[in-house]
Amino acid sequence: MKEALNIVKVGGNVINNPEALESFLTDFAAMEGNKILVHGGGKRATQLAADLGIEATMIGGRRVTDEKTLEIVTMVYAGLLNKNITATLQKFNCNAIGLSGADGNTIQAHKRIVKDIDYGFAGDVDGINAKNIMTFIEGGMTPVFCAITHDTKGQLLNTNADTIASTIAVGMSDKYEVSLIYTFEKNGVLTSIDDDNSVITNINSEKYEVLKADGIIADGMLPKMENCFDALQKGVAEVIIGNPTVIANKEQLYTSLTL
Amino acid sequence: MKEALNIVKVGGNVINNPEALESFLTDFAAMEGNKILVHGGGKRATQLAADLGIEATMIGGRRVTDEKTLEIVTMVYAGLLNKNITATLQKFNCNAIGLSGADGNTIQAHKRIVKDIDYGFAGDVDGINAKNIMTFIEGGMTPVFCAITHDTKGQLLNTNADTIASTIAVGMSDKYEVSLIYTFEKNGVLTSIDDDNSVITNINSEKYEVLKADGIIADGMLPKMENCFDALQKGVAEVIIGNPTVIANKEQLYTSLTL
Repeated sequence: MKEALNIVKVGGNVINNPEALESFLTDFAAMEGNKILVHGGGKRATQLAADLGIEATMIGGRRVTDEKTLEIVTMVYAGLLNKNITATLQKFNCNAIGLSGADGNTIQAHKRIVKDIDYGFAGDVDGINAKNIMTFIEGGMTPVFCAITHDTKGQLLNTNADTIASTIAVGMSDKYEVSLIYTFEKNGVLTSIDDDNSVITNINSEKYEVLKADGIIADGMLPKMENCFDALQKGVAEVIIGNPTVIANKEQLYTSLTL
Repeated sequence: MKEALNIVKVGGNVINNPEALESFLTDFAAMEGNKILVHGGGKRATQLAADLGIEATMIGGRRVTDEKTLEIVTMVYAGLLNKNITATLQKFNCNAIGLSGADGNTIQAHKRIVKDIDYGFAGDVDGINAKNIMTFIEGGMTPVFCAITHDTKGQLLNTNADTIASTIAVGMSDKYEVSLIYTFEKNGVLTSIDDDNSVITNINSEKYEVLKADGIIADGMLPKMENCFDALQKGVAEVIIGNPTVIANKEQLYTSLTL
């Protein structure tokens, strides 16, 4: 039987709030067994860009990672956030190791192909180096990934943290029984967006198609859910969607996705 | 017999020059056997502070690491520089892993004790976690350390890169035959500061006392040399001082220190 591995994604809403982050990291440090943390960016990069007078380039409502922006996200995500998260986890006796995808060649990506829009130094993930990630885990360390990857040719790339989490989950599924846990500001996938108690506790592929057809799952949730089912199809055992306290308290409401 | 381990320190003069850095990293990637890189900071942190309108606090000619400055050096050293160096080494097929002292709890330090002057978040190194560093090396990875450490209680600390290099060298000496290689802008320890060919090729403890008494080794070189002899006394096999090309070409002039 394969050992369990929990892969937890935490987003900007927690990263932006020092008390919420400290509380989340306390819970994460206390999680037993093998685990990996993937963290998003939060507002600090936007703030730093503003402080430096660098204007965000937006095309079609999406941010373009130009050279200056890449420097800023590398500084904030891989430096300030990743190292402070790592140091805080060390305080809680979790032997964290902060990583970008360049470190140990753990996550390979390529610069997004230009079709209509050039997103600049945005990375689309190709794969992971499961062997090196296992070296950390078997060495008693807890990998903490920021959303910076590399193209193996010397170029760092700004990459979506949700995609990083699911790619690692899929890539580690050969060796581990992987649970992929997406934390966000809601209690789970909701039938009514304004009612945080309207959590749909279990969704399988069949039910997902119905929820999609009924328009209950729509807009921003769609790509997230597609990403989750794709991970399940590629070998991830379980995907959980819930608020950040789900990692400490499984009595509460959350959404569990299965095939 | 113990395996060899080369620990190379590279300073700001190389970091500040993209062509020099690329050339140095080409040579470093080509070095055979076990190796570790420790890099200094360079001018980028000073530039970023200036761009953000943050004035350096100096006391007695030395920089104080206040909270804002710590954020800046964490972003620049552990983020921008460390990740770009790591990605560049990956390009040259060196499986680099960028680290601060918080990562894998590899370097523990304490906030410098306030005697006359409060240097803020400056770290004095206490020790290393040799086991975790060995995990990387035995896993086929090359550790690349920036000059940021932690106090194991959640606080990051700005730390002298020379001291980090010698502390790692000492801490790894039980397991490896360690050569500690300090690269800097001169060809080695010089009898005449203006003549880069006046390299003293071998210095032992006895000769060092004479050179010190004669005033040939003075000023800024003194703490560096004390640091080197301290490392030798604590088990490091060899200390080499030379320009950055010394790692590729041992035909050239350099200074070798032994007890």
